[in-house]
Amino acid sequence: MKLYSYFRSSASYRVRIALALKELPFQYEAVHLLKDGGQQLSPAYRRVNPDGIVPTLENGPDVLTQSLAIIEYLDEKYPDPPLLPGDPTDRAYVRSVALQVACEIHPVNNLRVLQYLKKNFGISDEQKSQWYRHWIDVGFGSLEVRLKAERRVRKFAFGDAPTLADICLAPQVWNARRFDIPLDNYPTIKRISDNAFDLDAFRQAEPSGQPDAEG
Amino acid sequence: MKLYSYFRSSASYRVRIALALKELPFQYEAVHLLKDGGQQLSPAYRRVNPDGIVPTLENGPDVLTQSLAIIEYLDEKYPDPPLLPGDPTDRAYVRSVALQVACEIHPVNNLRVLQYLKKNFGISDEQKSQWYRHWIDVGFGSLEVRLKAERRVRKFAFGDAPTLADICLAPQVWNARRFDIPLDNYPTIKRISDNAFDLDAFRQAEPSGQPDAEG
Repeated sequence: MKLYSYFRSSASYRVRIALALKELPFQYEAVHLLKDGGQQLSPAYRRVNPDGIVPTLENGPDVLTQSLAIIEYLDEKYPDPPLLPGDPTDRAYVRSVALQVACEIHPVNNLRVLQYLKKNFGISDEQKSQWYRHWIDVGFGSLEVRLKAERRVRKFAFGDAPTLADICLAPQVWNARRFDIPLDNYPTIKRISDNAFDLDAFRQAEPSGQPDAEG
Repeated sequence: MKLYSYFRSSASYRVRIALALKELPFQYEAVHLLKDGGQQLSPAYRRVNPDGIVPTLENGPDVLTQSLAIIEYLDEKYPDPPLLPGDPTDRAYVRSVALQVACEIHPVNNLRVLQYLKKNFGISDEQKSQWYRHWIDVGFGSLEVRLKAERRVRKFAFGDAPTLADICLAPQVWNARRFDIPLDNYPTIKRISDNAFDLDAFRQAEPSGQPDAEG
Protein backbone atom coordinates (compact mmCIF):
# COMPACT_ATOMS: atom_id res chain seq x y z
CA MET A 1 0.00 0.00 0.00
CA LYS A 2 1.04 3.55 -0.64
CA LEU A 3 -0.30 6.51 1.35
CA TYR A 4 -0.11 10.02 -0.04
CA SER A 5 0.05 12.12 3.10
CA TYR A 6 1.06 15.44 4.63
CA PHE A 7 2.35 15.15 8.18
CA ARG A 8 0.07 17.90 9.58
CA SER A 9 -3.09 16.97 7.59
CA SER A 10 -5.55 15.59 10.09
CA ALA A 11 -7.38 13.62 7.40
CA SER A 12 -4.05 11.90 6.59
CA TYR A 13 -3.42 11.45 10.31
CA ARG A 14 -6.74 9.56 10.66
CA VAL A 15 -5.77 7.07 7.96
CA ARG A 16 -2.29 6.63 9.46
CA ILE A 17 -3.92 5.69 12.79
CA ALA A 18 -6.22 3.15 11.12
CA LEU A 19 -3.29 1.58 9.25
CA ALA A 20 -1.27 1.43 12.47
CA LEU A 21 -4.12 -0.10 14.49
CA LYS A 22 -4.46 -2.81 11.86
CA GLU A 23 -0.68 -3.17 11.61
CA LEU A 24 -0.76 -2.73 7.84
CA PRO A 25 2.61 -1.70 6.41
CA PHE A 26 2.62 1.08 3.81
CA GLN A 27 4.90 3.28 1.80
CA TYR A 28 4.76 6.96 2.78
CA GLU A 29 4.53 9.40 -0.12
CA ALA A 30 4.86 12.97 1.13
CA VAL A 31 2.71 15.67 -0.51
CA HIS A 32 3.67 19.10 0.80
CA LEU A 33 0.60 21.33 1.03
CA LEU A 34 2.60 24.57 1.20
CA LYS A 35 5.66 23.97 -1.02
CA ASP A 36 5.60 24.70 -4.79
CA GLY A 37 2.26 26.50 -4.45
CA GLY A 38 0.81 23.30 -3.00
CA GLN A 39 2.10 19.95 -4.30
CA GLN A 40 -1.42 18.53 -3.95
CA LEU A 41 -2.45 20.77 -6.86
CA SER A 42 0.32 19.56 -9.21
CA PRO A 43 -0.75 17.79 -12.42
CA ALA A 44 1.16 14.68 -11.29
CA TYR A 45 -0.78 14.39 -8.02
CA ARG A 46 -4.06 15.38 -9.67
CA ARG A 47 -3.67 12.33 -11.90
CA VAL A 48 -3.72 10.21 -8.73
CA ASN A 49 -6.43 12.26 -7.00
CA PRO A 50 -8.29 14.88 -9.08
CA ASP A 51 -9.55 16.55 -5.90
CA GLY A 52 -6.08 17.85 -5.12
CA ILE A 53 -6.33 16.97 -1.44
CA VAL A 54 -4.70 14.40 0.84
CA PRO A 55 -4.86 11.59 1.75
CA THR A 56 -5.02 9.09 -1.10
CA LEU A 57 -4.43 5.40 -0.44
CA GLU A 58 -3.30 3.06 -3.20
CA ASN A 59 -3.84 -0.64 -2.54
CA GLY A 60 -2.99 -2.69 -5.61
CA PRO A 61 -5.44 -1.51 -8.29
CA ASP A 62 -7.60 0.41 -5.79
CA VAL A 63 -7.12 4.16 -5.57
CA LEU A 64 -9.04 5.43 -2.57
CA THR A 65 -9.88 8.96 -1.47
CA GLN A 66 -11.67 10.64 1.46
CA SER A 67 -10.32 9.56 4.84
CA LEU A 68 -13.57 8.13 6.24
CA ALA A 69 -14.24 6.12 3.08
CA ILE A 70 -10.66 4.80 3.23
CA ILE A 71 -11.00 3.77 6.88
CA GLU A 72 -14.32 1.98 6.30
CA TYR A 73 -12.66 0.19 3.36
CA LEU A 74 -9.73 -0.89 5.54
CA ASP A 75 -12.17 -2.08 8.17
CA GLU A 76 -14.10 -4.15 5.63
CA LYS A 77 -10.98 -5.65 3.96
CA TYR A 78 -8.91 -6.15 7.12
CA PRO A 79 -11.47 -6.58 9.92
CA ASP A 80 -9.02 -7.19 12.76
CA PRO A 81 -9.16 -5.21 15.05
CA PRO A 82 -12.59 -3.81 14.19
CA LEU A 83 -12.92 -0.03 14.06
CA LEU A 84 -16.72 -0.09 14.24
CA PRO A 85 -19.04 -2.02 16.59
CA GLY A 86 -21.40 -4.70 15.23
CA ASP A 87 -24.82 -3.29 16.13
CA PRO A 88 -26.37 -0.78 13.65
CA THR A 89 -27.39 1.65 16.42
CA ASP A 90 -23.89 1.59 17.91
CA ARG A 91 -22.32 1.93 14.48
CA ALA A 92 -24.48 5.01 13.84
CA TYR A 93 -23.33 6.50 17.14
CA VAL A 94 -19.63 5.92 16.37
CA ARG A 95 -20.02 7.27 12.85
CA SER A 96 -21.91 10.31 14.11
CA VAL A 97 -19.02 11.26 16.42
CA ALA A 98 -16.55 10.79 13.57
CA LEU A 99 -18.72 12.83 11.19
CA GLN A 100 -19.23 15.59 13.72
CA VAL A 101 -15.47 16.14 13.63
CA ALA A 102 -15.09 15.46 9.91
CA CYS A 103 -18.07 17.54 8.72
CA GLU A 104 -18.63 20.21 11.36
CA ILE A 105 -15.15 21.18 12.59
CA HIS A 106 -12.41 20.10 10.24
CA PRO A 107 -13.61 21.39 6.80
CA VAL A 108 -14.19 24.92 8.02
CA ASN A 109 -10.66 25.13 9.44
CA ASN A 110 -9.00 23.53 6.46
CA LEU A 111 -5.89 25.16 4.98
CA ARG A 112 -7.58 26.19 1.74
CA VAL A 113 -10.44 27.84 3.58
CA LEU A 114 -8.03 29.84 5.76
CA GLN A 115 -6.12 30.83 2.62
CA TYR A 116 -9.33 32.06 0.96
CA LEU A 117 -10.30 34.13 4.02
CA LYS A 118 -6.92 35.83 4.05
CA LYS A 119 -6.66 36.39 0.32
CA ASN A 120 -10.25 37.43 -0.48
CA PHE A 121 -11.53 38.97 2.75
CA GLY A 122 -8.16 40.25 3.97
CA ILE A 123 -8.67 38.97 7.52
CA SER A 124 -5.90 39.51 10.08
CA ASP A 125 -3.98 36.75 11.85
CA GLU A 126 -6.00 37.58 14.96
CA GLN A 127 -9.29 37.13 13.06
CA LYS A 128 -7.97 33.87 11.63
CA SER A 129 -7.20 32.58 15.13
CA GLN A 130 -10.64 33.59 16.35
CA TRP A 131 -12.28 31.81 13.41
CA TYR A 132 -10.22 28.69 14.02
CA ARG A 133 -10.98 28.64 17.71
CA HIS A 134 -14.66 29.42 17.19
CA TRP A 135 -15.33 26.29 15.15
CA ILE A 136 -13.39 24.07 17.50
CA ASP A 137 -15.31 25.53 20.45
CA VAL A 138 -18.68 25.11 18.71
CA GLY A 139 -17.88 21.54 17.69
CA PHE A 140 -16.14 20.37 20.87
CA GLY A 141 -18.73 22.20 23.00
CA SER A 142 -21.67 20.19 21.72
CA LEU A 143 -19.64 17.00 21.36
CA GLU A 144 -18.63 17.26 25.02
CA VAL A 145 -22.33 17.48 26.00
CA ARG A 146 -23.09 14.37 23.97
CA LEU A 147 -20.11 12.34 25.18
CA LYS A 148 -20.56 13.31 28.82
CA ALA A 149 -24.15 11.99 28.80
CA GLU A 150 -23.34 8.96 26.66
CA ARG A 151 -23.43 5.62 28.46
CA ARG A 152 -21.35 3.98 25.73
CA VAL A 153 -18.33 6.16 26.54
CA ARG A 154 -15.76 4.37 28.66
CA LYS A 155 -12.04 4.49 28.09
CA PHE A 156 -12.76 5.54 24.52
CA ALA A 157 -15.77 7.06 22.72
CA PHE A 158 -17.25 3.57 22.44
CA GLY A 159 -16.18 1.13 25.13
CA ASP A 160 -12.60 0.18 25.90
CA ALA A 161 -11.07 -0.08 22.45
CA PRO A 162 -10.52 2.69 19.90
CA THR A 163 -12.98 3.11 17.03
CA LEU A 164 -13.49 5.40 14.07
CA ALA A 165 -14.76 8.00 16.56
CA ASP A 166 -11.43 8.20 18.42
CA ILE A 167 -9.55 8.08 15.12
CA CYS A 168 -11.26 11.33 14.12
CA LEU A 169 -11.26 12.92 17.56
CA ALA A 170 -7.56 12.57 18.43
CA PRO A 171 -6.18 14.45 15.38
CA GLN A 172 -8.66 17.27 16.01
CA VAL A 173 -7.43 17.49 19.61
CA TRP A 174 -3.87 17.52 18.29
CA ASN A 175 -4.84 20.49 16.07
CA ALA A 176 -6.43 22.32 18.99
CA ARG A 177 -3.26 21.89 21.05
CA ARG A 178 -1.14 23.12 18.18
CA PHE A 179 -3.17 26.35 18.18
CA ASP A 180 -3.00 26.60 22.01
CA ILE A 181 -6.74 26.16 22.41
CA PRO A 182 -7.47 25.16 26.02
CA LEU A 183 -9.38 21.91 26.50
CA ASP A 184 -10.50 22.59 30.11
CA ASN A 185 -14.13 22.87 29.04
CA TYR A 186 -13.97 19.50 27.29
CA PRO A 187 -12.89 17.04 30.00
CA THR A 188 -14.44 13.97 28.36
CA ILE A 189 -12.87 14.76 24.98
CA LYS A 190 -9.55 15.36 26.71
CA ARG A 191 -9.69 12.12 28.69
CA ILE A 192 -10.66 9.99 25.70
CA SER A 193 -8.02 11.49 23.44
CA ASP A 194 -5.35 11.19 26.13
CA ASN A 195 -6.17 7.50 26.33
CA ALA A 196 -5.82 7.32 22.57
CA PHE A 197 -2.48 9.15 22.55
CA ASP A 198 -1.20 6.53 25.02
CA LEU A 199 -1.59 3.80 22.40
CA ASP A 200 1.33 2.84 20.17
CA ALA A 201 -0.77 3.11 17.01
CA PHE A 202 -1.82 6.69 17.75
CA ARG A 203 1.74 7.63 18.71
CA GLN A 204 3.14 6.09 15.55
CA ALA A 205 0.72 8.13 13.42
CA GLU A 206 1.50 11.49 15.09
CA PRO A 207 2.60 14.28 12.76
CA SER A 208 5.97 14.74 14.49
CA GLY A 209 6.98 11.16 13.69
CA GLN A 210 6.31 11.28 9.94
CA PRO A 211 9.07 11.31 7.30
CA ASP A 212 8.05 14.81 6.15
CA ALA A 213 7.73 16.28 9.67
CA GLU A 214 8.97 19.81 10.27
CA GLY A 215 9.65 21.51 13.61
CA MET B 1 -39.95 7.29 13.03
CA LYS B 2 -39.71 11.01 13.54
CA LEU B 3 -37.47 13.25 11.44
CA TYR B 4 -36.46 16.67 12.71
CA SER B 5 -35.90 18.57 9.48
CA TYR B 6 -35.74 21.96 7.82
CA PHE B 7 -37.06 22.00 4.26
CA ARG B 8 -33.98 23.75 2.80
CA SER B 9 -31.33 21.89 4.83
CA SER B 10 -29.51 19.65 2.41
CA ALA B 11 -28.44 17.28 5.18
CA SER B 12 -32.14 16.83 6.03
CA TYR B 13 -32.92 16.46 2.32
CA ARG B 14 -30.44 13.55 2.07
CA VAL B 15 -32.18 11.64 4.86
CA ARG B 16 -35.61 12.36 3.35
CA ILE B 17 -34.41 10.79 0.08
CA ALA B 18 -33.10 7.69 1.86
CA LEU B 19 -36.38 7.28 3.77
CA ALA B 20 -38.36 7.71 0.54
CA LEU B 21 -36.21 5.21 -1.40
CA LYS B 22 -36.79 2.65 1.34
CA GLU B 23 -40.48 3.60 1.58
CA LEU B 24 -40.22 4.15 5.32
CA PRO B 25 -43.02 6.32 6.69
CA PHE B 26 -42.07 9.03 9.17
CA GLN B 27 -43.47 11.97 11.08
CA TYR B 28 -42.08 15.33 9.96
CA GLU B 29 -41.01 17.66 12.78
CA ALA B 30 -40.11 21.08 11.38
CA VAL B 31 -37.17 22.95 12.94
CA HIS B 32 -36.92 26.45 11.49
CA LEU B 33 -33.27 27.48 11.20
CA LEU B 34 -34.06 31.20 10.88
CA LYS B 35 -37.11 31.77 13.10
CA ASP B 36 -36.79 32.55 16.84
CA GLY B 37 -33.05 33.09 16.46
CA GLY B 38 -32.78 29.55 15.13
CA GLN B 39 -35.12 26.91 16.56
CA GLN B 40 -32.29 24.37 16.29
CA LEU B 41 -30.54 26.24 19.12
CA SER B 42 -33.54 26.12 21.48
CA PRO B 43 -33.11 24.22 24.77
CA ALA B 44 -35.97 21.91 23.75
CA TYR B 45 -34.27 20.84 20.51
CA ARG B 46 -30.84 20.72 22.14
CA ARG B 47 -32.22 18.07 24.48
CA VAL B 48 -32.91 15.95 21.39
CA ASN B 49 -29.68 16.89 19.60
CA PRO B 50 -27.04 18.79 21.62
CA ASP B 51 -25.30 19.80 18.36
CA GLY B 52 -28.13 22.17 17.51
CA ILE B 53 -28.23 21.12 13.88
CA VAL B 54 -30.64 19.18 11.69
CA PRO B 55 -31.45 16.45 10.89
CA THR B 56 -32.13 14.15 13.82
CA LEU B 57 -33.95 10.86 13.31
CA GLU B 58 -35.79 9.15 16.15
CA ASN B 59 -36.54 5.48 15.63
CA GLY B 60 -38.02 3.94 18.78
CA PRO B 61 -35.30 4.34 21.43
CA ASP B 62 -32.63 5.29 18.87
CA VAL B 63 -31.80 8.98 18.50
CA LEU B 64 -29.58 9.41 15.47
CA THR B 65 -27.60 12.38 14.24
CA GLN B 66 -25.37 13.24 11.27
CA SER B 67 -27.02 12.55 7.93
CA LEU B 68 -24.47 10.04 6.59
CA ALA B 69 -24.50 8.06 9.84
CA ILE B 70 -28.32 8.03 9.71
CA ILE B 71 -28.38 6.81 6.11
CA GLU B 72 -25.85 4.02 6.78
CA TYR B 73 -28.01 3.00 9.77
CA LEU B 74 -31.14 2.92 7.62
CA ASP B 75 -29.28 0.86 5.06
CA GLU B 76 -28.16 -1.65 7.69
CA LYS B 77 -31.58 -1.93 9.38
CA TYR B 78 -33.73 -1.81 6.23
CA PRO B 79 -31.47 -3.19 3.49
CA ASP B 80 -34.01 -3.03 0.65
CA PRO B 81 -33.22 -1.34 -1.72
CA PRO B 82 -29.50 -1.16 -0.89
CA LEU B 83 -27.91 2.30 -0.91
CA LEU B 84 -24.35 0.94 -1.05
CA PRO B 85 -22.84 -1.75 -3.31
CA GLY B 86 -21.53 -5.01 -1.85
CA ASP B 87 -17.85 -4.90 -2.76
CA PRO B 88 -15.53 -2.97 -0.38
CA THR B 89 -13.76 -1.15 -3.22
CA ASP B 90 -17.07 -0.07 -4.74
CA ARG B 91 -18.40 0.92 -1.33
CA ALA B 92 -15.33 3.10 -0.80
CA TYR B 93 -15.92 4.76 -4.16
CA VAL B 94 -19.60 5.52 -3.41
CA ARG B 95 -18.74 6.78 0.07
CA SER B 96 -15.94 8.95 -1.30
CA VAL B 97 -18.35 10.74 -3.66
CA ALA B 98 -20.82 11.25 -0.81
CA LEU B 99 -18.07 12.52 1.50
CA GLN B 100 -16.67 14.83 -1.14
CA VAL B 101 -20.01 16.64 -1.08
CA ALA B 102 -20.57 16.27 2.66
CA CYS B 103 -17.05 17.26 3.78
CA GLU B 104 -15.63 19.48 1.04
CA ILE B 105 -18.58 21.51 -0.25
CA HIS B 106 -21.50 21.53 2.13
CA PRO B 107 -19.92 22.47 5.52
CA VAL B 108 -18.17 25.54 4.17
CA ASN B 109 -21.43 26.89 2.72
CA ASN B 110 -23.50 26.08 5.75
CA LEU B 111 -25.87 28.71 7.15
CA ARG B 112 -23.92 29.24 10.36
CA VAL B 113 -20.67 29.73 8.48
CA LEU B 114 -22.27 32.36 6.20
CA GLN B 115 -23.72 34.06 9.28
CA TYR B 116 -20.27 34.19 10.92
CA LEU B 117 -18.67 35.69 7.78
CA LYS B 118 -21.26 38.44 7.66
CA LYS B 119 -21.30 39.20 11.38
CA ASN B 120 -17.57 38.97 12.15
CA PHE B 121 -15.85 39.85 8.89
CA GLY B 122 -18.59 42.17 7.57
CA ILE B 123 -18.57 40.64 4.08
CA SER B 124 -21.01 41.99 1.49
CA ASP B 125 -23.77 39.98 -0.19
CA GLU B 126 -21.59 39.95 -3.32
CA GLN B 127 -18.65 38.48 -1.37
CA LYS B 128 -21.00 35.93 0.18
CA SER B 129 -22.20 34.84 -3.28
CA GLN B 130 -18.61 34.56 -4.50
CA TRP B 131 -17.67 32.46 -1.50
CA TYR B 132 -20.67 30.19 -2.00
CA ARG B 133 -20.00 29.75 -5.68
CA HIS B 134 -16.27 29.25 -5.16
CA TRP B 135 -16.69 26.15 -2.99
CA ILE B 136 -19.30 24.64 -5.27
CA ASP B 137 -17.01 25.25 -8.26
CA VAL B 138 -13.96 23.78 -6.49
CA GLY B 139 -15.94 20.73 -5.35
CA PHE B 140 -17.99 20.11 -8.48
CA GLY B 141 -14.94 20.85 -10.67
CA SER B 142 -12.85 18.01 -9.29
CA LEU B 143 -15.85 15.73 -8.81
CA GLU B 144 -16.73 16.16 -12.50
CA VAL B 145 -13.18 15.08 -13.45
CA ARG B 146 -13.52 11.98 -11.29
CA LEU B 147 -17.02 11.04 -12.44
CA LYS B 148 -16.29 11.65 -16.10
CA ALA B 149 -13.36 9.20 -16.01
CA GLU B 150 -15.13 6.71 -13.77
CA ARG B 151 -16.20 3.48 -15.45
CA ARG B 152 -18.70 2.74 -12.66
CA VAL B 153 -20.80 5.78 -13.58
CA ARG B 154 -23.84 4.89 -15.65
CA LYS B 155 -27.29 6.31 -15.10
CA PHE B 156 -26.23 7.19 -11.57
CA ALA B 157 -22.88 7.65 -9.80
CA PHE B 158 -22.68 3.88 -9.38
CA GLY B 159 -24.52 1.85 -11.99
CA ASP B 160 -28.21 2.14 -12.76
CA ALA B 161 -29.72 2.55 -9.30
CA PRO B 162 -29.29 5.44 -6.87
CA THR B 163 -26.81 5.11 -4.00
CA LEU B 164 -25.53 7.20 -1.11
CA ALA B 165 -23.47 9.12 -3.70
CA ASP B 166 -26.54 10.37 -5.59
CA ILE B 167 -28.33 11.03 -2.30
CA CYS B 168 -25.61 13.54 -1.42
CA LEU B 169 -25.08 14.90 -4.92
CA ALA B 170 -28.69 15.79 -5.80
CA PRO B 171 -29.34 18.15 -2.83
CA GLN B 172 -26.04 19.92 -3.56
CA VAL B 173 -27.15 20.41 -7.17
CA TRP B 174 -30.47 21.71 -5.88
CA ASN B 175 -28.52 24.26 -3.76
CA ALA B 176 -26.43 25.31 -6.74
CA ARG B 177 -29.57 25.90 -8.81
CA ARG B 178 -31.13 27.90 -6.00
CA PHE B 179 -28.13 30.24 -6.12
CA ASP B 180 -28.21 30.39 -9.95
CA ILE B 181 -24.85 28.68 -10.31
CA PRO B 182 -24.54 27.35 -13.87
CA LEU B 183 -23.86 23.64 -14.22
CA ASP B 184 -22.60 23.75 -17.83
CA ASN B 185 -19.08 22.82 -16.76
CA TYR B 186 -20.36 19.77 -14.88
CA PRO B 187 -22.24 17.73 -17.50
CA THR B 188 -21.81 14.39 -15.72
CA ILE B 189 -22.99 15.79 -12.39
CA LYS B 190 -25.91 17.42 -14.16
CA ARG B 191 -26.89 14.24 -16.03
CA ILE B 192 -26.71 12.03 -12.94
CA SER B 193 -28.66 14.42 -10.77
CA ASP B 194 -31.30 14.96 -13.46
CA ASN B 195 -31.77 11.19 -13.52
CA ALA B 196 -32.15 11.30 -9.74
CA PHE B 197 -34.67 14.14 -9.82
CA ASP B 198 -36.77 12.01 -12.18
CA LEU B 199 -37.32 9.42 -9.47
CA ASP B 200 -40.37 9.62 -7.22
CA ALA B 201 -38.29 9.27 -4.06
CA PHE B 202 -36.10 12.24 -4.94
CA ARG B 203 -39.13 14.31 -5.95
CA GLN B 204 -40.94 13.46 -2.74
CA ALA B 205 -37.96 14.65 -0.69
CA GLU B 206 -37.55 18.00 -2.47
CA PRO B 207 -37.63 21.08 -0.26
CA SER B 208 -40.64 22.60 -2.03
CA GLY B 209 -42.81 19.61 -1.11
CA GLN B 210 -42.13 19.64 2.64
CA PRO B 211 -44.69 20.71 5.26
CA ASP B 212 -42.52 23.69 6.29
CA ALA B 213 -41.74 24.83 2.71
CA GLU B 214 -41.71 28.55 1.95
CA GLY B 215 -41.78 30.22 -1.44
